[in-house]
Amino acid sequence: MTELAIDGLPRVVVIGGGFGGLMVAKKLRRLKANVTVIDRTNYHLFQPLLYQVATASLAPSDIAGVIRHILRNNSNTIVELAEAREVDVAAQIVTCSDPSGRRSDFDIPFDYLVVASGTRHSYFGHPEWESLAPGLKGIEDALEMRRRFLLAFEEAERAATPEERDEWLTFVIIGAGPTGCELAGVMQEIAHGMRRDFRRVNTHDTSVILLEAGPRILPAFPESLAMRAKQDLTNLRVDVRTGSAVTKIEPGNVYVGDDVIRTRTIFWAAGNIASPISKSLGVPLTKTGQVIVERDLSIPGHPNIFVIGDLAHALQSDGHPLPGVAQVAMQQGRVTARNIVASIERRPRTAFNYFNKGDLAVIGRGKAIVNLFGGKIQLAGRVAWMIWLGIHITYLIGFRNRLSVLLQWAYAYFTYQRGARLITKTPRSDITR
Amino acid sequence: MTELAIDGLPRVVVIGGGFGGLMVAKKLRRLKANVTVIDRTNYHLFQPLLYQVATASLAPSDIAGVIRHILRNNSNTIVELAEAREVDVAAQIVTCSDPSGRRSDFDIPFDYLVVASGTRHSYFGHPEWESLAPGLKGIEDALEMRRRFLLAFEEAERAATPEERDEWLTFVIIGAGPTGCELAGVMQEIAHGMRRDFRRVNTHDTSVILLEAGPRILPAFPESLAMRAKQDLTNLRVDVRTGSAVTKIEPGNVYVGDDVIRTRTIFWAAGNIASPISKSLGVPLTKTGQVIVERDLSIPGHPNIFVIGDLAHALQSDGHPLPGVAQVAMQQGRVTARNIVASIERRPRTAFNYFNKGDLAVIGRGKAIVNLFGGKIQLAGRVAWMIWLGIHITYLIGFRNRLSVLLQWAYAYFTYQRGARLITKTPRSDITR
Repeated sequence: MTELAIDGLPRVVVIGGGFGGLMVAKKLRRLKANVTVIDRTNYHLFQPLLYQVATASLAPSDIAGVIRHILRNNSNTIVELAEAREVDVAAQIVTCSDPSGRRSDFDIPFDYLVVASGTRHSYFGHPEWESLAPGLKGIEDALEMRRRFLLAFEEAERAATPEERDEWLTFVIIGAGPTGCELAGVMQEIAHGMRRDFRRVNTHDTSVILLEAGPRILPAFPESLAMRAKQDLTNLRVDVRTGSAVTKIEPGNVYVGDDVIRTRTIFWAAGNIASPISKSLGVPLTKTGQVIVERDLSIPGHPNIFVIGDLAHALQSDGHPLPGVAQVAMQQGRVTARNIVASIERRPRTAFNYFNKGDLAVIGRGKAIVNLFGGKIQLAGRVAWMIWLGIHITYLIGFRNRLSVLLQWAYAYFTYQRGARLITKTPRSDITR
Repeated sequence: MTELAIDGLPRVVVIGGGFGGLMVAKKLRRLKANVTVIDRTNYHLFQPLLYQVATASLAPSDIAGVIRHILRNNSNTIVELAEAREVDVAAQIVTCSDPSGRRSDFDIPFDYLVVASGTRHSYFGHPEWESLAPGLKGIEDALEMRRRFLLAFEEAERAATPEERDEWLTFVIIGAGPTGCELAGVMQEIAHGMRRDFRRVNTHDTSVILLEAGPRILPAFPESLAMRAKQDLTNLRVDVRTGSAVTKIEPGNVYVGDDVIRTRTIFWAAGNIASPISKSLGVPLTKTGQVIVERDLSIPGHPNIFVIGDLAHALQSDGHPLPGVAQVAMQQGRVTARNIVASIERRPRTAFNYFNKGDLAVIGRGKAIVNLFGGKIQLAGRVAWMIWLGIHITYLIGFRNRLSVLLQWAYAYFTYQRGARLITKTPRSDITR
């Protein structure tokens, strides 16, 4: 038994075991310090593939790794399964609560703090939409989405009228960023793969409608690539509707102005809002709650507190805010770890500069778009898809031996079949607390 | 769109998509009939490997296949996602309810009925024990077990006192049949695999106590093999206590007479009771609710109604009741399909005779016991384990291309690591119904 905390060493606390937080902890592995990583869940999630769980292609464990296992060789690090609620910047304390409710709230003191707790869905002032149009942030969201998607076909199979059947076979996705586009494309592919499984339903009647309030899909990509992606989606029989801001959602109906779409299944891929802990930092926030950070990613007035990843509002060299993607979070994590070491060793810090290796979005089987090195290389179609596949497999193999994912993909690619089409129910939560 | 039911053809209804029910449907594939398979879930579960989901070794989708996909080539078959509640043997009708609660109850008429809805846990007149000591029947049970097992180590890691830590590191399994033995062995192996992931917990302090009311473990196996299994379990540091009937369970405590075991995590692997639909058949039942069937597996007085699998009480040639295992259910399904065809074609039926290919139980890494051909071949250790592995892989590959399972096992075997150690929460059930 090892009791880890060593008196007198600097205490580094990291909130969030995502791409940013894990990178900080990994890079501090050799530091003489007491490092604590706090996360609400026991796993790190490879969020870019979450849509594959939502669409029954991968199992949750294929895209998640246990945080304390990933950090098992960090002998200076403790992993706390807890929810970080509030930061007291003056007292240098993080207040945590126990997700199981067994322990009362407790404090973790810090000398250096890295807040990397990310964002959650925003329904633009309509919280009542959440239950009607679930979003996709965590494993539970993905399983709920999978459940609704698969159940819709079961309901269509036993629908009493053709109208009811059509409503069950209509899926509306709100928001045409990468997640919305990926979901829309894969959903049509899966409907195709299930074509022989149903007797009364013709899965070719499946209608997937992708609604985007802005003038075009995938605004983070160059227009030519986005046009290509739109064409790919249309070829997959996705109904892409830009300039279509949703004005109202009610059970069975989505409204775009005066138009109404009758549907039983709605998914949300539109907006994000910062994790609420940002408010307790007492510094200026953007209107979505992101923390406006200094060039070294610390917060104004508190050089020992850093905010990184989706939660940080940092500007690119061209003045645009950085996108909320894994590579930003990882690069910020790396610089933050370096700056913490610099401060401890009384050396000057370095400013964060984002090096954009490229952006990727996948539309479906053999279809993706890739924008590399600031637009110097733009690719679409099968080659882009191979690059997408290569990058994701490399990452997954790196964080755990995930050959099984490769096999699942190969299987799905050659057979059009999906492996995780289980409709699972709620575990009995009442008996566990 | 195909509307399947063809007027005038015999209607065969199968309740349950387990080993028995699926076999009936598969074997009736070429019959001119309207076949309906009713199941509460959309998947068939490979129950013999469920303990591997409960112990974080496999993902749920690795051991489950979607029923309507398995039966996609049965063009005479409809799959109904519904709960069969009651059989009216006189009117020849099965009353079903919709698990989603959207439809009101509905009736499915039949000419031939096969009831293969299995068993659930029995707490021997102590239903209040269920929440304290969950059992292992379905995917949800397995995920709940996995959650409790993994959370116990998290709780131990942050326990306030050594006594509390010990209670979290003590796991009690009640019942030493194959499931109980498999769970106990694998739990110690996983604790070993996590040895470097914790800072305050020494996973070697994990205590797994296997309680059996009877005089020895694995009563279905020859005594010499059971002794070997007990030795293997003991070598894995499982505390096997036979002749230990549990008299009381309360939060934190298991009582065996006057002895009390302090533990925070209890699992149930002791008893089964028949699915409640058996009562509506109006025929004699055993005290655990199993249906006493004729030699052709039909029920007394109703030659068009068959009961197979765990729900049936059938006798072996030696007068002992048949065990509740997959090979019994599959062989019964095959004979039942044949007898239904015989009746339609006005040929005589055949009686069911069980051919026991062998019994298997696995204790852990490279450790299993195998009893083949009625005891003619008895094996233990690594060779037995290879046989166990071969049979399970063959089956899994047969029902879907499950090479990924093989890879997971290979990975776990060589690295002592498990791939599915996620603690997942309850999906928000309130928003789905």
